[in-house]
Amino acid sequence: MSDVVRITFLPGGETVTVPPGTILSDAAQQAGLQMNLPCGGRGMCGKCLVIIEQGEVSEPSEAELERLSAEQLAEGLRLACQTQAVEDVVATVPPASRVIGEKVLEADFLAGVERAPYARQHWLELSPPSLEDQRSDFRRLADALAETYAGLVAYPQALRGLSAALRDDEFRVLATCTGNRLVDVVPASAGGRCLGAAIDIGTTTVVSYIVDLGSGEILSSAALHNPQTQHGADVVSRIEFANREPKGAAVLREEAVGVANETIGVALERIGADRREVFDATVVGNTCMHHLFLGLDARYLAEAPYIPVTADPVDLQASEAGLDIYPRANVFCLPCIAGFVGADTVGVIAAERLTDREKPCLAVDIGTNGEVALWSGERLLVASCAAGPAFEGAQIEAGMRAGPGAIDHVWRDGEDITVTTIDQLPPEGICGSGLFDAMAVALETGVVDPMGRFVPDEDGLAPQIASRLQGEGNDRRIILAENSGNNGPIALTQRDVREIQLAKGAVRAAVQLLLAEVSLDVNDLEEVLIAGAFGNYIDPASALRIGLLPPVPLEKVRAVGNAAGAGAVLALISRGERGYACQVARAAEHIELMRKPEFQMTFMETMLFP
Amino acid sequence: MSDVVRITFLPGGETVTVPPGTILSDAAQQAGLQMNLPCGGRGMCGKCLVIIEQGEVSEPSEAELERLSAEQLAEGLRLACQTQAVEDVVATVPPASRVIGEKVLEADFLAGVERAPYARQHWLELSPPSLEDQRSDFRRLADALAETYAGLVAYPQALRGLSAALRDDEFRVLATCTGNRLVDVVPASAGGRCLGAAIDIGTTTVVSYIVDLGSGEILSSAALHNPQTQHGADVVSRIEFANREPKGAAVLREEAVGVANETIGVALERIGADRREVFDATVVGNTCMHHLFLGLDARYLAEAPYIPVTADPVDLQASEAGLDIYPRANVFCLPCIAGFVGADTVGVIAAERLTDREKPCLAVDIGTNGEVALWSGERLLVASCAAGPAFEGAQIEAGMRAGPGAIDHVWRDGEDITVTTIDQLPPEGICGSGLFDAMAVALETGVVDPMGRFVPDEDGLAPQIASRLQGEGNDRRIILAENSGNNGPIALTQRDVREIQLAKGAVRAAVQLLLAEVSLDVNDLEEVLIAGAFGNYIDPASALRIGLLPPVPLEKVRAVGNAAGAGAVLALISRGERGYACQVARAAEHIELMRKPEFQMTFMETMLFP
Repeated sequence: MSDVVRITFLPGGETVTVPPGTILSDAAQQAGLQMNLPCGGRGMCGKCLVIIEQGEVSEPSEAELERLSAEQLAEGLRLACQTQAVEDVVATVPPASRVIGEKVLEADFLAGVERAPYARQHWLELSPPSLEDQRSDFRRLADALAETYAGLVAYPQALRGLSAALRDDEFRVLATCTGNRLVDVVPASAGGRCLGAAIDIGTTTVVSYIVDLGSGEILSSAALHNPQTQHGADVVSRIEFANREPKGAAVLREEAVGVANETIGVALERIGADRREVFDATVVGNTCMHHLFLGLDARYLAEAPYIPVTADPVDLQASEAGLDIYPRANVFCLPCIAGFVGADTVGVIAAERLTDREKPCLAVDIGTNGEVALWSGERLLVASCAAGPAFEGAQIEAGMRAGPGAIDHVWRDGEDITVTTIDQLPPEGICGSGLFDAMAVALETGVVDPMGRFVPDEDGLAPQIASRLQGEGNDRRIILAENSGNNGPIALTQRDVREIQLAKGAVRAAVQLLLAEVSLDVNDLEEVLIAGAFGNYIDPASALRIGLLPPVPLEKVRAVGNAAGAGAVLALISRGERGYACQVARAAEHIELMRKPEFQMTFMETMLFP
Repeated sequence: MSDVVRITFLPGGETVTVPPGTILSDAAQQAGLQMNLPCGGRGMCGKCLVIIEQGEVSEPSEAELERLSAEQLAEGLRLACQTQAVEDVVATVPPASRVIGEKVLEADFLAGVERAPYARQHWLELSPPSLEDQRSDFRRLADALAETYAGLVAYPQALRGLSAALRDDEFRVLATCTGNRLVDVVPASAGGRCLGAAIDIGTTTVVSYIVDLGSGEILSSAALHNPQTQHGADVVSRIEFANREPKGAAVLREEAVGVANETIGVALERIGADRREVFDATVVGNTCMHHLFLGLDARYLAEAPYIPVTADPVDLQASEAGLDIYPRANVFCLPCIAGFVGADTVGVIAAERLTDREKPCLAVDIGTNGEVALWSGERLLVASCAAGPAFEGAQIEAGMRAGPGAIDHVWRDGEDITVTTIDQLPPEGICGSGLFDAMAVALETGVVDPMGRFVPDEDGLAPQIASRLQGEGNDRRIILAENSGNNGPIALTQRDVREIQLAKGAVRAAVQLLLAEVSLDVNDLEEVLIAGAFGNYIDPASALRIGLLPPVPLEKVRAVGNAAGAGAVLALISRGERGYACQVARAAEHIELMRKPEFQMTFMETMLFP
């Protein structure tokens, strides 16, 4: 047995040298890889599965024998938190076992927001009862809080332990209320915090932010892959799964709730907090995620006329939602607007206070389903467009998700083209941001014309560029880089360009039609906001160059990060912000683009490149 | 095998002649005896236990073998709904297997009450959605109800089946709401009623009234013994049980909730209604019953300074309360006032609209714990007094509950005394109403003097009366009747008279002190109301004669039946009445008699007979 062993994690190839006997999850952390350990690495949750590809490891622990079948063990599946490396090891970390980089929150969105959370904790010292003062225990407490709550009522469960809690520490208690309801009373000596969880259920990624509701500070966060992805990358295929499979909807709900619980667990673990300290939760997500999370029938979202079960704000208890936090914590699901304009869009509008602006402003959230919100200065219009999965790398020949080895940027480098990849690994494919850049470069170099056609011959092209062109017809392509894998070189093809045209045309058509609705011109826009993680990775110049965004000066474009998540955090911190979200959802006018006679004509135009 | 058999039910001795093979529960019904059959006689609930004392019956059915142990069967225990008589049979029906006579509701208390129930059902025909009208399913429904509900919200569970319900019968639905919450939506073709249950949890008897919330009509009711009685006849001994026994409080809660569910089941069975048609429930009971039903800590009710956990109105979902009706039905527990002035007193005040009167009025509820409410014309005062169990037959030598064979009335009959018994059976003891009468007769005939002393000798008494006197000192007694059992004759003893003095003195002291509090005189009272079933059985003249009631003309005394139950029914039928109950509970001033320096002096005086 040597005194160090070398552990390599796939697919990223992160490598670390550690003493033999090191637990794999510890080694992963040293390698800069965040494992999913909601149970704190005690072998209880079975969430840190790895596949041992090579090398000897310790015998399965009792916890592993309990959680893994003989078959799974035979296939090399192990729990990273239980397994020690005996010699050099190569292990694959599946997406579900990995905590992914959090979605970015703009740092300043909390500035100036009033701290008035829906859930509040109060330290109280009450006078003890006597024959002269026979008020009930609850009335005594409610009277002490009368200035804060006009008509405090109590959950019966909170009443059940009230008498003992009051008498345990001489009528000094910590009382926690949500809205005007008493949810929990403990003796002051028992202590405890009042935390909130803002949950952003994305189609691909689920992230939770843990907020100290006393200070309004974000203490922690965690993101995980949405396990629903295994049933389809986009919302429509998940609805099909729900309709097709027996209990499909129940499976999708369990997965959404389960992954929300896991993100909360990981985020709480990081700050040493307990699930029962979380007294409030807010939820954003597109209308489909919202419905699946709540166990609502998503069937009619996917067929015309695209009707949600409800778009109103929904409040429910954590135990009803299945969230593993304080059982009677309130869960506030931000309202949606329409079948394809969800609570995530409401979150963006709320976080950016779109309707507080004097001048017109456009917010665009780009994904498989694009959402566009336009504030005209007087009216708030929203629309959705089916951009298709091209921007997420699907239906693109060399497309892949934004993971290690994906080409994320493409430049014109003198007379040639150069690329960078995520984690500087050998290129394996191209992700959305790289695709935009490649398309912009193809236009800039004259390889593709404004109609979206590859030039038939190399005349007039720089020689290095010309040498990259191959194929004919729909297979015509420009080589971007050699592939590190077994497939051919990574290229942008004629077919890919057509997919990009359809996608960006849909987004632009939505923008054009909304502007026309309020008789505004692109030049009237004060700002164009790009929401979503995507916005943080794409090059706005490329987005402008290919005409995904309307033609505004580059300085008017701003990436606002995970503004949907920011909206959920704001709703935790301030009842006023929560009310604002409800108000904008009601005020928003949803424009159904399919109904517009001019839709097809506009779409044809917006598919062209500038 | 003869062609008829004779079945006798104990302890009442009801007898019926039926063909052999008759089911015992059917025979009982023919004999005028209501068995407890919440499952409708299908052998599923095990609630109709009888003990076969004599005679051959059918072999145990499968249902019986499942529900009864070998030991129980060996002891002769059987389910009446499963057992056929083979020959003449004598069977004992224990109290828990028997539906008891309902508490009387005054017929006219519903007159003039606005029908505005908290739970309402609406038949709706909605326009189907289209691309021109993309409102969510919930918004479509809420908009249709906008005139009725300003801010309708939905239980998430009601949203879960909403889309299918709307589309099942061409957007015609029955929507049921409680308060401003949508609880249930079914296709109109599915039909269904909207019922309510008013539950009166008495220390001894539990009764439920089933109300059609559409018409406001009382459809059915049922009463059962409170099984908590096995742990103590009065509230204090039940609280002691809860404190003493591990899980004692949980047992008492289960029993209270269980018997409430049984009464609802029996009452629904009678009208062929389903538990899921009950969308609202209201609950009255004294503060202890209220606490035990809700699972609240009753410990501090029984020790000074007698503090309830809460006296505020409590709303909770049926599933949280453990009530087996529609799971998200609202359960409204009427407010209490103090540790010994409960929701039952609030119900009486509400049913009689005490504070709407122009002139002073007194309401008295007589039981182990007496409650007194005085409306002065401006102020509402309430007090409780520990009358002790004498009025319920306990601690009285020949005392018994008001059951078959109890002496319920005693008259001066010429120069002698005569008695009647319940069901005209041979006398076995004396119950509360008989005791009052006997006491009045003893005073009237000069057997007992105003100080409560038996006359030492028979001088000046009518000869028949004199011949009934026996014994010396505390054993001095007047014989009322021979006993049908093995014990000595049924008598009123010197010790009994002292118990009565303590009990009636406590009630009268409470009345006197409340009158003094608002500087009123007995003559100022317009009416004296006697609440509780007790009030229907006692002779008001006797109550006046012994000084239990203040000295008012007999015509000012009125028995108001189960006014507490009436208050619960009103709260079902009218939100206004529900609000009134909350308002009077807040307005009531609780006078703690123990704190009054003049209490002891007053009590000494009120113990004397007029």
